[in-house]
Amino acid sequence: MGDVVVHMSMSVDGYVAGPDVSEEHPLGVGGERLHEWMFVDPMDPTDARVAAEAFSTERVGAVLMGRTTLTVGLRWWGDDGTYRVPCFVVTHRPAETLVKGPTSFAFVTDGLDSALAQARAAAGDRDVNVMGAATASQLLRAGQVDRVHLNLVPVLLGDGARLFDGVPQGVDLERTGTVTSSRADHLTYRVG
Amino acid sequence: MGDVVVHMSMSVDGYVAGPDVSEEHPLGVGGERLHEWMFVDPMDPTDARVAAEAFSTERVGAVLMGRTTLTVGLRWWGDDGTYRVPCFVVTHRPAETLVKGPTSFAFVTDGLDSALAQARAAAGDRDVNVMGAATASQLLRAGQVDRVHLNLVPVLLGDGARLFDGVPQGVDLERTGTVTSSRADHLTYRVG
Repeated sequence: MGDVVVHMSMSVDGYVAGPDVSEEHPLGVGGERLHEWMFVDPMDPTDARVAAEAFSTERVGAVLMGRTTLTVGLRWWGDDGTYRVPCFVVTHRPAETLVKGPTSFAFVTDGLDSALAQARAAAGDRDVNVMGAATASQLLRAGQVDRVHLNLVPVLLGDGARLFDGVPQGVDLERTGTVTSSRADHLTYRVG
Repeated sequence: MGDVVVHMSMSVDGYVAGPDVSEEHPLGVGGERLHEWMFVDPMDPTDARVAAEAFSTERVGAVLMGRTTLTVGLRWWGDDGTYRVPCFVVTHRPAETLVKGPTSFAFVTDGLDSALAQARAAAGDRDVNVMGAATASQLLRAGQVDRVHLNLVPVLLGDGARLFDGVPQGVDLERTGTVTSSRADHLTYRVG
């Protein structure tokens, strides 16, 4: 079985999104700064390698996200839906599976645990990538995340959504590698 | 003139101290974990170099701290007071300057700005090191910190004092170097 992986860009003050997330500002107001390392042209070769691995369908077999992440992200993900694997969307509103080329978005209405189980089954031996601050935080609090990859970006956002709010006290992480580029520090951890 | 420098060990969830700071637990309950990299024997040679530079009297000409930091820290700092430079303690209670060998602790009762000015004057061309989460946060909020050195430790504390609470939104930092050891990621920034 693969791992459940949270892979997020984070500000030095711990925010993975700015305030007021919307379709126009999918990472919150000012949060675009968090993804600059991934969208600047030309990318730093190290960043390019990190981003490619984060989204590699060799490593990632399914994606798990909340409804808000889909709502604010979909228009940015293009005609192929970006992820090219089955995606599971936790929601209260049932809907038909949405297909964007090689990417499918299935709506799961019976809770996060069920969505995670479905994502794990779809991923097989590959990893499940968790998207969205709220869903990632919820899984971290529940101790269901195996690995955390942080792309630490040199900015103080000052407001927004924190990844680690409400995690249990005194959780030791195992560092599994630090890679530094000209724009970010890429820190990887295994959760104890 | 030197820089005003905040040099602190921080958990991955952004805490520079755990909850319930006291003489027994100067870094809060569970916060001892933050300083392990500095006190383990043998130290990683990279950590030894980082720690030596953090406290070098060639670089640091004065130290600024709040009264709580002195109260909870003094018994741990030994007969020489550890810092070997003039230290300025912001407090409401006047007291005679305390001398511990080459280290002096002067009590400043007319506010943080005055204490910072006195520390700068004492430091001359060298840096002022800021100690204590509350004092460091206050100076960061006021835009009076030139450099931040974080020793990022692989633990989630879950509770305690955060360094960057209340900083203005969208402050860009300039990365000035990342050094990785077997126990911590040492991240250095210049504040814009």
